[in-house]
Parts: sequence; structure tokens; C-alpha cells
Amino acid sequence: MAKEITPKKENYSQWYLDIVKKAGLAENSAVRGCMVIKPYGYAIWEKIKDELDRRFKETGHQNAYFPLFIPKSFLSKEADHVEGFAKECAVVTHHRLMNNPNGSGVVVDPEAKLEEELIVRPTSETIIWNTYRDWIKSYRDLPLLINQWANVVRWEMRTRPFLRTAEFLWQEGHTAHSTSKEAMEEAKTIHDVYADFAESIMAMPVIKGAKSESERFAGALETYTIEAMMQDGKALQAGTSHFLGQNFAKAFEVKFLNENNKEEYVWATSWGVSTRLIGALIMTHSDDDGLVLPPKLAPIQVVIVPIPKPNETLLEVAGKIASSLRNKGISVKIDTDRKKRPGFKFAEYEMMGVPVRLGLGMRDIENNVIEVARRDTKEKASIPMDNIENYVENLLIEIQENLLQKAKTFREERTSFVDTFDEFKEVLENKGGFIYAHWDGTAETEDKIKELTKATIRCIPNDAKEENGVDMLSGKPSKRRVLFAKAY
Amino acid sequence: MAKEITPKKENYSQWYLDIVKKAGLAENSAVRGCMVIKPYGYAIWEKIKDELDRRFKETGHQNAYFPLFIPKSFLSKEADHVEGFAKECAVVTHHRLMNNPNGSGVVVDPEAKLEEELIVRPTSETIIWNTYRDWIKSYRDLPLLINQWANVVRWEMRTRPFLRTAEFLWQEGHTAHSTSKEAMEEAKTIHDVYADFAESIMAMPVIKGAKSESERFAGALETYTIEAMMQDGKALQAGTSHFLGQNFAKAFEVKFLNENNKEEYVWATSWGVSTRLIGALIMTHSDDDGLVLPPKLAPIQVVIVPIPKPNETLLEVAGKIASSLRNKGISVKIDTDRKKRPGFKFAEYEMMGVPVRLGLGMRDIENNVIEVARRDTKEKASIPMDNIENYVENLLIEIQENLLQKAKTFREERTSFVDTFDEFKEVLENKGGFIYAHWDGTAETEDKIKELTKATIRCIPNDAKEENGVDMLSGKPSKRRVLFAKAY
Repeated sequence: MAKEITPKKENYSQWYLDIVKKAGLAENSAVRGCMVIKPYGYAIWEKIKDELDRRFKETGHQNAYFPLFIPKSFLSKEADHVEGFAKECAVVTHHRLMNNPNGSGVVVDPEAKLEEELIVRPTSETIIWNTYRDWIKSYRDLPLLINQWANVVRWEMRTRPFLRTAEFLWQEGHTAHSTSKEAMEEAKTIHDVYADFAESIMAMPVIKGAKSESERFAGALETYTIEAMMQDGKALQAGTSHFLGQNFAKAFEVKFLNENNKEEYVWATSWGVSTRLIGALIMTHSDDDGLVLPPKLAPIQVVIVPIPKPNETLLEVAGKIASSLRNKGISVKIDTDRKKRPGFKFAEYEMMGVPVRLGLGMRDIENNVIEVARRDTKEKASIPMDNIENYVENLLIEIQENLLQKAKTFREERTSFVDTFDEFKEVLENKGGFIYAHWDGTAETEDKIKELTKATIRCIPNDAKEENGVDMLSGKPSKRRVLFAKAY
Repeated sequence: MAKEITPKKENYSQWYLDIVKKAGLAENSAVRGCMVIKPYGYAIWEKIKDELDRRFKETGHQNAYFPLFIPKSFLSKEADHVEGFAKECAVVTHHRLMNNPNGSGVVVDPEAKLEEELIVRPTSETIIWNTYRDWIKSYRDLPLLINQWANVVRWEMRTRPFLRTAEFLWQEGHTAHSTSKEAMEEAKTIHDVYADFAESIMAMPVIKGAKSESERFAGALETYTIEAMMQDGKALQAGTSHFLGQNFAKAFEVKFLNENNKEEYVWATSWGVSTRLIGALIMTHSDDDGLVLPPKLAPIQVVIVPIPKPNETLLEVAGKIASSLRNKGISVKIDTDRKKRPGFKFAEYEMMGVPVRLGLGMRDIENNVIEVARRDTKEKASIPMDNIENYVENLLIEIQENLLQKAKTFREERTSFVDTFDEFKEVLENKGGFIYAHWDGTAETEDKIKELTKATIRCIPNDAKEENGVDMLSGKPSKRRVLFAKAY
């Protein structure tokens, strides 16, 4: 199995597609740009969802569900928003099919044309703020802290599974507040939730920062982002949290009576992460043998493989080990297949990124040991069977930490600080990765750099030090370095 | 609050809408026929989902996700299916909007017409079986036991929140098997899962049976249903599980090599329940004071109300009670509002259907008691504070059982056995409810009865006794009684 993967060094892009396919995560469907998320890929998404959902609820949010369709006119209500989203989208124009009068099959019934076209949501700010108008009357109705798990559609021309698909799954939070300050705090709280999730659950280090004006969400006054480095040195925007000011409240006339009985427009945030995170996960940890998963997101954390094949004794011992592990909340699979060879199975579980593999033979039982193999380092060790559950529990923690540490080291090694544009181009071309450089703060320079190098400002990092410098291209003064990279 | 509800006896249909609105479950949206599921309604759906999802996984199913869109031509591939589903649906014809050249707003870009129209899924058999063709090659790939949680769209003309909406949320299972027998067993297994869920979690008794041919799912050879009686005596189809034979395998050319290396078409099932269950829940238990929820689906199982308003002592005692309850896995809310009066709060929690309310005043603390009010019977009692968590835990179990028992008794009282068509019409008109009567097994008689009375055959019950009789309309022989009712 494993040998069918294109090596990363040969072709990173093909390697990615091979992993998606061979690990059984997703595949293209009959509908252009829409993927089928296969059971193993979906199981990872369920783990991502559960972890995030718990964090959203712990920070006071509730889930709700808003319509899939948005009346076309809603999209034009917020001027920037329509520019950003109304262009490539799925438009519903009719509500009925009829038998083809000229032959077989069905055709659109021309009588069933909608008065106003409906757009399949590319994001839900407009329909949600149109709803909030009825929900918010007084400061007592605020804050309103709502999230929805949903599918959205953006008609992308070039698609790649998880990274960019016409339909994708995501969560979108939409909150309403009585003050600018509170809305800004909310946007930052979620920014923190996303960063913590990325690091502690995905084992994916991220740079937290604000987007430059031209990279902001359509309709936002401020966009906070978490940016991760993929193994090819490119950046991936893994989650964004937007401070929307009063833009949507004004577009949809959402006002509230404040404590002094005066009418004010409501302040807003929105924020989201999507199935794109699975793409990020793959490109942070995986290798030429397949997927590598952090234990906290692995649908199967431990697999027990009886060697050379299952027999009654091996299955009995495996069963005991499995229940001692399950008692600790660890998910375990016992491989009961009698046909495939151990080597084939090992390759298969490596492909799937199962963090820990336990190999159990009759000789092991005699010696009261078991062979423990880690997916991350490929190390194997013969470990005493007694208290194996404690050993494995600690090993899973160690693997989770090791993956984060490894990704951090990788990122540090590919992070540069440059002062001149020549140096910038040279690093981009030869080393790649993240580049910290001075920027004069203008969209003009930002555009020029993008045009000349394809690198973009990923963010103005939260932890950027005050440091006087000059823009590497314009020579104008700058107060801090920003993060540049080529990006997905 | 409560007084704003229309009494059931006055207008059951308006009573239902009032409950949906006043309990904060859902509301109509700006998009015709699409509802907004509000946080409290969605929290109930999450509980339904969790319970069902666990049962699906325990019976060996995995979740996956298939595209929202279905190419128009797919719908015509299975002859019966297209008749049933291709008619009223949302049709995507374009993939781009553009600025209106004649003024403001956006219009559909005529250049962006799709080559083939896409249908927003009304159900996913077609796209899924088109996918299964690549997944199934050999008997070793079977069974394939997959479920998806998704939104679907059917362009209904007359909608009612939860009961019938253009967009709704549901799960749809789609399984593939190597033998007819195994597929039939799967359809029955899920039928059992649905019935058990309805009774043990929703406290909603159901009649299990098979649909008559004309009431079957479009494309099915057999449809199993669970039918519940609502408080107005009408039936509600709460879940269906279909044995699809080889219809979809043949339509999408899905074959496998059997153990003898011979090619065969695959056998299929599909099954689903939807947000309609929330409508069923409301119409099974609720009363003129609002929603009544079985404890197993209540987002808040216990509310503690300090009387007349919170003070430090009351909140301290309430906090201790709350944690002793939470330790038992019971969800508790402490009402900390200082402005509303207790009477108002009581009405509010009754409206929301919180199963148990604990009223706590300073006098109670002195006497070491607490006032316990049940939502189902409206009984109140002063209970010793010691071990109150055990008392409440048992009370929740008792309420769950009582609701099921009450609904069973209600159904039995409104179930009739009739032998003549005059009697049938008389019972339908005056008593309503479920009617067991003989039927000759023909679609012709079934249609005539429906035309004359609006009653339909809800199912041929699993437990129908062999009993010779004659059809009440045609006089032809019949071997068993079937279940008739007017239905939602």
C-alpha cells in the first residue's frame, strides 16, 4: 500500500492527493468541486467538531440553525460583503422539474421560476442578521452568542479535497453585542479558542495575528487569523475571527435600546473554521508512509495486531489489553482479519496514521511482553505486559507532545527575518517558509509584493515587537515586522 | 406568558404554532418554507442526534458525508424514484452573480449557466449509489453500513415548523449488502432502533409495521414505519426504514463478485428520521401551559429558582444542590435573575418544559426542605433536603416512565376496531384516532377509502394477528386488520 504514495520531495501536491485517497479520507464526487468525505475522514471531522463544540459551549455559545438559502437581495445589503461573496455561488432559480415532453428524463419546468433567486449560502451573515433584527430589542437581549454547524457553497474554479472545495462543512459563529469593546473581546476570545485548539488538539503550532486591510473578510473591520506552516513551507490560514463593527447591524437595521433607553446599532462578530482543518492536519504531520495523526484526533488510537494471525489465545490476551485501555478512554481496534499478512496490515495502519500499534505473538505472551510501535517516530520496543495500559496512556501523551514540538522546530527552521527585497526574493525562492519583514502599512506596497513574488502578508502578528525599520520595497518607515509567506 | 397560548381544545393547530413560538423552538425565516431552528429547539435536536448516533454506531454504522447537489440526470435513473422526488425541488441553474448593469444590486450572470442543472438533494440515494459503484467490487467490501447527518430540501407548498418544511435536517442511512436476506435484516434492525428510540427516549409509543405498496418510499420494495398518535388523534409517521432490493444497484450499475466469483447486483436499504421528530415530541406530551419534555431529551432537566429572589445564602445552597445533581449527570440551571417575579419564572420554565423545578426560599433552608414541582403532573411537594439528588434522580426516571404510560393510555383510549364502513366513518368523524379494520390488499380499495374519508393505511402492523375477515368496503376476504388513521 504505502509504496503507492508519491514521495513528498518528488511532488508535494501529488503526495497530498495520494494521502487523501490512500488513507480513505475523501474523494471527488460526480459534482464538480464537491467531495465525498469518507467514513475515516468524517470520523476525524467528528473529533474536531466535538472538541470545538465543547469549547464554544464552555465560552457561553449556543448552537442554532439558519436556512441554507439566502434571498439574492440580501447579499447586496452590505456593500463590501457583496463584492466578496456574491460572485461565485450556486444560484437556485426554479423549484420544479417536469418530465421531458420531447423524450426521456426530466427538465426544468419553466413555469416554476422563482420570483427572487435564492443563493446557496456561501456564509450566513446576511440571513442571520436579518433574523437578529427580530431577536434583539433591548440591551437585555445581548450578548447573543450563537454558532451553527453547516454546509456552505462557494463556486471555486480550482478545487482540492479539504483545502478548497465548492461545498464544505464548517462552523460559523455570529454574535451580537451592545458595545464595540465587548464585540472586540469576543473576536479575541474565539481567536484564542482557535489557537489553543490548533496547538493542543491538532498539535499544529500557529502564528496569531491580525489580517492587513486587503486580506480582511468582506465586511469586517478587523480579521484575526491563525496561520500554520505546512511541510512545503507554505502558510495555511486555519481559522479566522472577525470584528464586524456595526456594518451588518446597519445593513439590516438591527438596533437595541441601551440602558439609557437610547437606540443604538448592535456590534457584531463572526468566526469560522472548516473541513480545511483536515487538509492542514495532513500537511502538518504526515509522511511518505501515510497519514500521521495526533492521538487526540485519531479515530483509532491503538491497534492490536495478533501475529502472525489471530488465534484463541492471542485474541483473549488482546481482548484483555483492549479493555484495560478502553477503561482509560483510549479507542482500540483489535485486528481480527485472518487473511492479510502482518506486514501488509502494518503498512495499512501506518497509512491510516494510527498512533500506536501493538504487535502480539505467542512468544510475546510466553515472555510477558508486547511489541509497541509508534507511528510518529517509527520506533519499536518490546515492553512488559504488566501495566501496559499505563505505558500506552503515557505514550499517547508523548506522541501528542512530540508532534507539536516537531512541527514547531520545523517552523522555526524555516522562519527568516529579512531586511531587503533582494534578500526577501532569495529566501522565498530557495528556502521558502515564513518571512518576517518590515512593511509600510499601505495596500499599494502589499499588492506590489504580491504581484512580484506571489507572497502575501499572512498577518500582523500579535506578538510583533515594536521595532523601527523601513519597508523593504518602498523604503518608507515601519514600526514592526509582519509575516509574509506564500499561502494555500 | 402561558396565557398567550391558544388552548388545545380551541384550535390544536394554532396551539402547536404557539408552543413552537413561545417555547423558543423555531420560527419562519425570510425564505419561504425554511425555518430557523432557535437555540432551545436546536438543543433538543442535538440530544436526539446524540442518542440516535450512538445507537447507529453500536449497530456497526459509520458516518460519512456526500454532496449537497445531485446532477439532474441522476434523478431519472431509478424510474419510481424520479416520480416521487424529482418534482418539487430546488434547482441550481447558474454559478455566478454580477453587478446589475442597469442599476443597483446583483443579477444572475447569464454567462454562468451550468451545463447540467444541479438539484439540491431531496434525499441522497442517487448520488450515494453512484459513489458506491466505485467502493464495492467484491463481497469483501460488504456490508457497507453508512449514515449521514445532513440538510435536505423538498419544495413543499404548505409548510409547518418541524412537521413539513422546505429545508429540514435529518439523518439518512444507506447500506449495501451481498444478499437480500441481509439487507432485509438491516432494514428491520433499524426499524427496531427507531421504535426503541421513540419509546425509551422520546417516551412516544409507536406502532411498528410495513407500509402498503402505494405508501412506500419511491424506489423501495418494502417500507417499515413507526407510527405515533398525536394528541388530536392523528397519526404521525416518525421514521421509515426501506428495503430497496436491487433497484438502485441496477440503476447505478453497482455489482460485486460473490464468493463464487460471480457478478451480482448489490442489495440495498435506506432509512431516515428528521427534525420532524421535534414536532412529534410536542404533539405527544405538551399541554396548554407549554412544552412538556421527557427528561432524556430535556436540555435543562432541573431548574433551581431562589424565592423570592437570589441572595447569597440561597445561591450557596442552590450551588451545592446543583453540583450534587450534576455529579449524577443531571443538567441543572440555577435561575440568578433578580428582576422577574417567581410566578413569572415558573410560567416560563413550564413553557420550556423543564421536567423538574426546585423552589428554594429562606424558610425552606431553616426547615431543611425544598419544594419540588414536576412539569408533567404539576404536582408540588416539600421534600427533605438530605439526599435530594437521589430523590430528583428517581423523579426524572418516574417522569420519563409516566409520560410514556400516559401516551400509551391516551392511544389505547383512541384506538378502535371496526368491521363496517359506516362504523369506520362514524368513528373517524366522532372519535378519531387509530382504527384497525380489514382491508382486501388492493390499492384500488385503499385509494377509495382515502378519497372518501381522508384516512390512509398507516401500516400493516408487525403484530397483526391472523384473523379472517372481509374488507369493509369491497367485501373481499382479508387475513388481518391494518391500521387506518388520518395523518400529518
